[in-house]
Amino acid sequence: MMFWLLDAELALILEQFLFSSDAAEELKEAIAKKDHELVLLYNVNLVDEVWKERPKPPNKPVRIHDLQFAGLDVASKLSFLRAELNDASASAIIISMLDEVAWLLNLRGSDVPHSPVVYAYLLVKTDTAELFVDSSKITPEVMDHLKNAGVELRPYDKILSEIENLAKQGRNLWLDTSSVNTAIFNTYKCACDKDLNKKSKARVQDYNGRSAIPSGIYRASPISLGKAVKNDAELQGMRNSHLRDAAALARFWVWLEEEINKGARLTEVEVADKLLEFRSMQDGFIDTSFDTISASGANGAVIHYKPEPGNCSVLDVEKLFLLDSGAQYVDGTTDITRTVHFGEPTARQKECFTRVLQGHIALDQAVFPENTPGFVLDAFARSSLWKIGLDYRHGTGHGVGAALNVHEGPQSISFRYGNLTSLQKGMVVSNEPGYYEDHAFGIRIENLLSVVEMNTPNHFGGIGYLGFEKLTFVPIQTKMVDTALLSSAEINWLNDYHAQVWEKVGLYFENRWTKSMSSSPP
Amino acid sequence: MMFWLLDAELALILEQFLFSSDAAEELKEAIAKKDHELVLLYNVNLVDEVWKERPKPPNKPVRIHDLQFAGLDVASKLSFLRAELNDASASAIIISMLDEVAWLLNLRGSDVPHSPVVYAYLLVKTDTAELFVDSSKITPEVMDHLKNAGVELRPYDKILSEIENLAKQGRNLWLDTSSVNTAIFNTYKCACDKDLNKKSKARVQDYNGRSAIPSGIYRASPISLGKAVKNDAELQGMRNSHLRDAAALARFWVWLEEEINKGARLTEVEVADKLLEFRSMQDGFIDTSFDTISASGANGAVIHYKPEPGNCSVLDVEKLFLLDSGAQYVDGTTDITRTVHFGEPTARQKECFTRVLQGHIALDQAVFPENTPGFVLDAFARSSLWKIGLDYRHGTGHGVGAALNVHEGPQSISFRYGNLTSLQKGMVVSNEPGYYEDHAFGIRIENLLSVVEMNTPNHFGGIGYLGFEKLTFVPIQTKMVDTALLSSAEINWLNDYHAQVWEKVGLYFENRWTKSMSSSPP
Repeated sequence: MMFWLLDAELALILEQFLFSSDAAEELKEAIAKKDHELVLLYNVNLVDEVWKERPKPPNKPVRIHDLQFAGLDVASKLSFLRAELNDASASAIIISMLDEVAWLLNLRGSDVPHSPVVYAYLLVKTDTAELFVDSSKITPEVMDHLKNAGVELRPYDKILSEIENLAKQGRNLWLDTSSVNTAIFNTYKCACDKDLNKKSKARVQDYNGRSAIPSGIYRASPISLGKAVKNDAELQGMRNSHLRDAAALARFWVWLEEEINKGARLTEVEVADKLLEFRSMQDGFIDTSFDTISASGANGAVIHYKPEPGNCSVLDVEKLFLLDSGAQYVDGTTDITRTVHFGEPTARQKECFTRVLQGHIALDQAVFPENTPGFVLDAFARSSLWKIGLDYRHGTGHGVGAALNVHEGPQSISFRYGNLTSLQKGMVVSNEPGYYEDHAFGIRIENLLSVVEMNTPNHFGGIGYLGFEKLTFVPIQTKMVDTALLSSAEINWLNDYHAQVWEKVGLYFENRWTKSMSSSPP
Repeated sequence: MMFWLLDAELALILEQFLFSSDAAEELKEAIAKKDHELVLLYNVNLVDEVWKERPKPPNKPVRIHDLQFAGLDVASKLSFLRAELNDASASAIIISMLDEVAWLLNLRGSDVPHSPVVYAYLLVKTDTAELFVDSSKITPEVMDHLKNAGVELRPYDKILSEIENLAKQGRNLWLDTSSVNTAIFNTYKCACDKDLNKKSKARVQDYNGRSAIPSGIYRASPISLGKAVKNDAELQGMRNSHLRDAAALARFWVWLEEEINKGARLTEVEVADKLLEFRSMQDGFIDTSFDTISASGANGAVIHYKPEPGNCSVLDVEKLFLLDSGAQYVDGTTDITRTVHFGEPTARQKECFTRVLQGHIALDQAVFPENTPGFVLDAFARSSLWKIGLDYRHGTGHGVGAALNVHEGPQSISFRYGNLTSLQKGMVVSNEPGYYEDHAFGIRIENLLSVVEMNTPNHFGGIGYLGFEKLTFVPIQTKMVDTALLSSAEINWLNDYHAQVWEKVGLYFENRWTKSMSSSPP
């Protein structure tokens, strides 16, 4: 994002390709209130003008996301999308969310760190589909893959002229103004307005022989939900990649504990690098899925902490250590947080950890009717903390892509009540309650879950009841648990979970992390 | 409410005093879509025209709600209200919600069954206050009470002409369009429009010597929240009246169990009448607070069931019996539901009852941060039912007045997410999860709770954490509980509750209802 505030004119100059239409509109309203003006730049990029040694855009080759992981071929996806266009009386849709383009075309790239996407626009019409992309990234194999699905290549920088053409052809264009950039939005709108002026003078026929004046259809993307609701192949890829990821983490934790016991002085960055090394050895590993949060002691209370080499802490046997990390594999995306202590945690730390764990368990075990928005479940994850006057300032769960972005919509589990998207079978969400004590420590316990239909003995209201299947299988440090606070059901949950971890990835770690606890409460 | 659908003109004729302005607006929009017309009646009431032997309006005397129960005198309440008027730049407010009039003036009446209110309008101006009421209901004592608070009497039927005067005087009138009837709304609006026309011709000064054109201030009533948040005296009245109510219920349940054991054939209506008899013997009893729901067997599954003499069921030792009832006392309002079995409940009935009880306990024990809307807690009351695919189709909690209406806003605890009113210290809410099996049985367990500040060891975010204090102390039938489903914390809750019931109202009932359960889970 860029802001240029010119004193002389008090104008905000906005690079149109970098802001969504909705965001630009919000900015415009905000600065109009202060008597400033929004200047939209059309044919010049100010950053390019001043950044003379800017690195070239990424141009690593695009790869095919194998059908065994994608589960549905591109032609089928396009055909579902065209049915949506038809229902909405749209004759084209412009897709600019990079993960939506990647998902729809079963392609993956490496243009953005941590996110396996390609810089591109996809224009799907009722009859054709055009991918606007730097053709140097397209291998012959990918070319064939696209051709088979009826997708043609166009130069990346021709997107605006094609958008203008659409209006001239009288095509109604579906635009999701929350994601489509303001350059595309304005280009289409201006071209439509011009068209309207012309047609009001002479009766003109559109490309279908109908007399029509094109207009934008401003709706949420129809791909967002399709992408969020994973099919069986995507879910299987998520399960498999999570087990390989868990194996890497198990080896990592064993290594780390041994190093600490030996008295090694390891920085947060060194530890994160070592974890990357273990993950890199796993089949299908591609990248981390976000910057690893490796946080010792008080750094754990900084929610989006990023350790920097040369300016980060050394792990300490006296302090809590919070590690939030994830990876991109060919078949899935992971995101996991564990908080551990290498020495003796304080009673306070154990109490807080245990209440975070109780929230984690309550959400994990939740059963809820179809059509329940995520925010309804958020309080389950907080209620044990609330009992002693504690809370955390972030949401409890976000959507996760299947071998795609580690954060995706449209669902969420949050105290913010605005998101009415219901949780649906096949969605993947994180379960990550936490507690952060400023200048002292941070605690978070995060697993990924997929939404599954529960086999409940009743179906009141004639509907399905949903729950969660765990994707993440990595031990939770029992040393941190104050069992006196747990119910026998909660103790059973933890013992069952560790039994599953042992069964699924047990070869890779040592038993001492998960010593079984007595299930009768004290 | 009345609807007259005239075939000839396809018009809906609406008696303006019977519909709120918002409701009339909604109706107007709805019928406009069907090309019908809304005709507002000004000087004629069609019901009066055809209903020649209509009983006279009620004219029982109004009584003073004693300061020891009200906690705040009328002058203080009016002074708080006038500060709100000032903040809103209003110079008058019209109050037409009968419970708001009663609360503000510390008056109670008997014009509406179950609700201790008086038919009246209250007009509060910055300087004076006028009560539009049938003066034959006003005793000299009430007259003095009103005079002391600076409230003058006006004839009930002069309300519209006074509303018109307000506009002529250039006063900005605060109207809550969700409650003020459409006659008042339209009268004020038309008078303002007339005024505007006049003033646009000649510069006219308002009653304060300022040149002004009056306009309506359309906001939610400022009294609703003040009434919902009870002061200490109101809460004490609620506690006291609940104990006397519990004593009546205890005597009633003992009587009923003995009758059933003797083989008596009692109808639902006879049982409700007997309960009324026990309640009538209590100090300060005035009325029931709603029509008693006395429902045997399948009738319990009809959520708003009302047994009618001569056409109701006989209680059956083989069936569940649901009793939802409440009373008005001089110092408080009660509302309680218990579900019991006089013989041997089935495993199914016990399972459903136990899960309803678990929901009841979960909500009762909830702790939550300030600024939490009621809907956030709703899922706590359902989650045990959801686990086996059950649910109920009503909200979990409604507001309750202090010696006022048994249903009041603005707060609620419901799966409907629209009500963002946060639960606040001093509010009273019901806690009434249920489960209803069509044609078989109904289960509901209802206590009233007041919102209290919890003495939590932490106050994360620098805010208060709230919870509930129980107002209702009547046994829950342990025979209905499947202890195998309960955690030890839940068993302790039930035993603690019954210990409190015994301590507070123990003289009145027998021990067998609340035999203590072992606190270790099976």
